[in-house]
Amino acid sequence: MGGSLALALRHRGYAHRLFGAGGSPEDLRLAAAAEYPRGDGTAPIFDLCREDPAELPWAEVDLVVVATPPATLAEIFGQLREWISETCVVTDLASVKGDLVASGTALLGGRYLSAHPLVGGERHGFAAATAELYVDALILLTPGGEEVDPRALALQQLWEALGCRVRMLSPGEHDDALAATSHLPHLLAYAFMASLDDSDALRDLGGSGLRDFSRIAESDPALWTDILLRNREAVRRRLQTLRHTLDHLDGLLAQGSAAVLGDILATARARRQQFRFPPRT
Amino acid sequence: MGGSLALALRHRGYAHRLFGAGGSPEDLRLAAAAEYPRGDGTAPIFDLCREDPAELPWAEVDLVVVATPPATLAEIFGQLREWISETCVVTDLASVKGDLVASGTALLGGRYLSAHPLVGGERHGFAAATAELYVDALILLTPGGEEVDPRALALQQLWEALGCRVRMLSPGEHDDALAATSHLPHLLAYAFMASLDDSDALRDLGGSGLRDFSRIAESDPALWTDILLRNREAVRRRLQTLRHTLDHLDGLLAQGSAAVLGDILATARARRQQFRFPPRT
Repeated sequence: MGGSLALALRHRGYAHRLFGAGGSPEDLRLAAAAEYPRGDGTAPIFDLCREDPAELPWAEVDLVVVATPPATLAEIFGQLREWISETCVVTDLASVKGDLVASGTALLGGRYLSAHPLVGGERHGFAAATAELYVDALILLTPGGEEVDPRALALQQLWEALGCRVRMLSPGEHDDALAATSHLPHLLAYAFMASLDDSDALRDLGGSGLRDFSRIAESDPALWTDILLRNREAVRRRLQTLRHTLDHLDGLLAQGSAAVLGDILATARARRQQFRFPPRT
Repeated sequence: MGGSLALALRHRGYAHRLFGAGGSPEDLRLAAAAEYPRGDGTAPIFDLCREDPAELPWAEVDLVVVATPPATLAEIFGQLREWISETCVVTDLASVKGDLVASGTALLGGRYLSAHPLVGGERHGFAAATAELYVDALILLTPGGEEVDPRALALQQLWEALGCRVRMLSPGEHDDALAATSHLPHLLAYAFMASLDDSDALRDLGGSGLRDFSRIAESDPALWTDILLRNREAVRRRLQTLRHTLDHLDGLLAQGSAAVLGDILATARARRQQFRFPPRT
């Protein structure tokens, strides 16, 4: 997601200078070698890439996008406090907020504004980066307090300039909503695959329904273990409601209650039709 | 699925004459007006379409594909017995077999061989038909007994000629496997959507993960009520295993057991990677 943002910023001409740091050595090597437009040799995407972020020219930096897993962020914010200027804005792209916003705000004050772009897919790393990832995307910004620091509002304008829609909500609202729309679906897709028997007999028998339903079960297990645990209170609340629904459906199947079962399926379908999803790219 | 098969047969030149009957009046109107190649006016796809199937020239019919919901099939097989010749083969495309194969075999003997093409999507009707639906598809054939009647083997050859792979399994094996790979995922996607609160707040917050995970919750509720009830024994067994997995995961979330949780997610991911899915079209 960080690589895609770098590509989008370069593509739109919003990057005066772009610096890259951290990530896996392979990602950093790919990022350092990447050119814009890709492969024609005219210009590198990053003006400077360093394995050690301490080696970047911090006095020149106006915006830091920390595109790393949630577990790494608090420590990185602590480091950034030593390096960044008074006017530099810091953001992250984490899909769960938890204590993160409080810790970032405590360390960086009004220079910090946490973001969660509703984009993705199960592929990671710079090789999966694309300048189009954020087109028409919804970006959730989760301020740490009532007021958003004017410095951080530049971040909102930047996302809008990239063609995104922006919505503000509190970290708690974010985590409760995302437990429903992302974290519980991931847990269910993982649970479903884990519940299958380990025989070879089923492996040819998945159609397009199962293919799409279970795609997110190929997401990074370490990242998702962290996300689910960080948001476990909201996830467990949503899971509890779902388990009640499953108990109810199981009873209806046992009783052969076609009418009630049909009503629930029709309600579920109507609710799904009311969602607005990103187009398939 | 019936419309797509008609298109594929015409497209490959395997249809000497094609007759259509039944379906909704709108579908029948679309089918009767459809041309091949679509819209250039050279040839109709169907040589004859009739609302009442009794009006078709049954003496000429070599193959009957009954592409209607499972609940309608037993009655249709009973009617067909009055109309078809001794050499005419009958098949259906039902995604749950249950007592259907026994009833079809009792009524039609060796002329009947049930099929389940692992294709689909949540769109129905002739307007959604495409000649490419069955390319590279896996077709499950579920004979009613040990021996497949030589007449019915022509059906296997036809599917293979259309570019499909064919696998034989018993109706019970079929229903148990499909409970795992299709019926339970549908139940879960419906249950998930039904368990969400009915507020507007979540409707913008679904990303590509939820979009794909929940797509099958837009499937026809009446059809799926019927499928789930017809296969409820196998579905409830699979659901029971899943509920145990969810209970276990809930406990791990409560305890904060990152290591065990991570192992289960990694197992689920590995299992998903072993599946062979149809390509996204």
